[in-house]
Amino acid sequence: MGPHHGRRAALRSSLQAAELDALLVTDLLNVRYLTGFTGSNAALLIAADGDDTSVFCTDGRYDTQSGHQVPDLKRVIDRQCDLTMAAAAADAGYTRLGFESHRVTVDRHAALAATAPTVELVRAPGMAESLRLVKDDAEVEALRMACAAADRALADLIAHGGLRPGRTEREVARELEDRMLDHGAAGRSFESIVATGANSAVPHHRPTDAELCSGDFVKLDFGALVDGYHSDMTRTFVLGEPADWQREIYQLVAAAQAAGRAALKPGADVRDVDAAARDVIQQAGHGDDFVHGLGHGVGLEIHEAPTLSRLGDGKLAAGMAVTVEPGVYLAGRGGVRIEDTLVVRDTAPELLTLTTKDLVVV
Amino acid sequence: MGPHHGRRAALRSSLQAAELDALLVTDLLNVRYLTGFTGSNAALLIAADGDDTSVFCTDGRYDTQSGHQVPDLKRVIDRQCDLTMAAAAADAGYTRLGFESHRVTVDRHAALAATAPTVELVRAPGMAESLRLVKDDAEVEALRMACAAADRALADLIAHGGLRPGRTEREVARELEDRMLDHGAAGRSFESIVATGANSAVPHHRPTDAELCSGDFVKLDFGALVDGYHSDMTRTFVLGEPADWQREIYQLVAAAQAAGRAALKPGADVRDVDAAARDVIQQAGHGDDFVHGLGHGVGLEIHEAPTLSRLGDGKLAAGMAVTVEPGVYLAGRGGVRIEDTLVVRDTAPELLTLTTKDLVVV
Repeated sequence: MGPHHGRRAALRSSLQAAELDALLVTDLLNVRYLTGFTGSNAALLIAADGDDTSVFCTDGRYDTQSGHQVPDLKRVIDRQCDLTMAAAAADAGYTRLGFESHRVTVDRHAALAATAPTVELVRAPGMAESLRLVKDDAEVEALRMACAAADRALADLIAHGGLRPGRTEREVARELEDRMLDHGAAGRSFESIVATGANSAVPHHRPTDAELCSGDFVKLDFGALVDGYHSDMTRTFVLGEPADWQREIYQLVAAAQAAGRAALKPGADVRDVDAAARDVIQQAGHGDDFVHGLGHGVGLEIHEAPTLSRLGDGKLAAGMAVTVEPGVYLAGRGGVRIEDTLVVRDTAPELLTLTTKDLVVV
Repeated sequence: MGPHHGRRAALRSSLQAAELDALLVTDLLNVRYLTGFTGSNAALLIAADGDDTSVFCTDGRYDTQSGHQVPDLKRVIDRQCDLTMAAAAADAGYTRLGFESHRVTVDRHAALAATAPTVELVRAPGMAESLRLVKDDAEVEALRMACAAADRALADLIAHGGLRPGRTEREVARELEDRMLDHGAAGRSFESIVATGANSAVPHHRPTDAELCSGDFVKLDFGALVDGYHSDMTRTFVLGEPADWQREIYQLVAAAQAAGRAALKPGADVRDVDAAARDVIQQAGHGDDFVHGLGHGVGLEIHEAPTLSRLGDGKLAAGMAVTVEPGVYLAGRGGVRIEDTLVVRDTAPELLTLTTKDLVVV
């Protein structure tokens, strides 16, 4: 039996605790998480009392595909999946139907209410997302493969001299993304960041036709998509012999990143994890140059809960997959960010991005 | 002055007609359409009485960028852009504030209402989208460039023998997408469809490791993204000498496609345009093998209004950009789809996808 059955069972426990008869799942990532279905139109009615009374709906384009991917639930084929499932809830005599109020639009909510006037639509935001916080084995395996594709692409890029003076940021980004596909990625996780020289001081720089120059920092922030799961890694290199200031901030960021990783423990407050890394940078007098949070959850979304930052909220648990990515950015000169994707474990966190974090001179 | 000023003026007319003091624009494509801003977090408060009292909001990451892209509106920097704009509406003393109820979630609506309790939030779905139906010159130019990138990529693919027995669908898709980047595309418009042999009978087949074989239909449905605008084109080739049945359905689909294009006229009902092409296929006895609508609008979204189908609604107008893409799919054997992107004009429609529609044998 696949992992989806167990995920639905966990969701049913949440439904029972919230005294809901069922949950109408319309977010496609949540549908995928709970069923394995990968198409672009679907809804799911998860009944609190069991899989036997739960129903999956997609349209005719996905009849065959959903038969393979969702063999273990009752299936209905219709275009307006959300309305069809609301009507099914009414037919089943449900009185309290949870809906994903963080995703359902005001207009769509009105349509649901009109379709199922006998059913009380109860706001139930983030129920599936709460489960998605802690990754099961199948999810960690997908994350591992996504991180491996990114690691291997970067190794190929460097081995083939992909980082050399005269190449443009755009060319490097394309090669990196192309090599991720070579290593089994279905695509990139997000638009790659390749930032050279002063551009590396811009946290979310988009690749341009700027050429890599000797002496530059080159910052690469990129990820691969495998089985719907995202990887996220940043490495910063120096083209040629590093200057003292470059060594200095590189070692500072590396130390902060190590401190952040060391703070990844079940029960740790996300603000304390951020602080563990931030303190290192602050004590070196660069607190104002670390302008973003320390990290974020990774999974079916490239950015998901938990948020590791001063504004975050909550505690870590074993099985959460997060990034740790401090940076120091010196406007007009250059910046360094070092980022790993890791899984929180009872012992030390499990590192999924395996490329070295030593200062590599290319 | 760029096109955004005029678009905002047109939106203000709609606001006045709807007796709204202002519109809170939170859909990022609509924000882009109305301002030119391309970042990932923004909201816009368009006042009915003028640009001087309209306000744009984005977060600190986009301070510099938005200064360049949105020089002509008052700018506010804050993370929670929608709430900030709702508060600004309250401060301005607005009583009727339109919001994009087709995009705003139930939870976000509640947050807006809590932030601006003195303001009546009025459902105003699709106001910017109504304007986006008819493309202005800047938009058509972007569509033209996107279509040209796709045309040139396909020409390169064929010239370099990219369609030959033994290659996989996945390899062809990658080469096609790579060549679109060579021709200036920022990316692909959507996941390319490359479908060979019996797979070509699946309307929305995803590329697999299936190899192209002599005698196969090879169906390519793909598009390029330029300046935020999408192109959309399908061509179907035969690998080697076509069989009679292949010539037959190819000519049938080509004739239906020509009839659909000829029906693109200002004032034409979208159902009649669909029927113009569908009738040709039905009369040949293949009505049941044409399983989808004839076409759709294209612009900042790959699928947008109008929908050219039996279930569509409304009339065409000059300046609308649409696809015309009939298909005949014979399960287990193969299928043909031929698709162009065109702009409706007072005279003949303007063809943007310029690759031949003659039956090409590769």
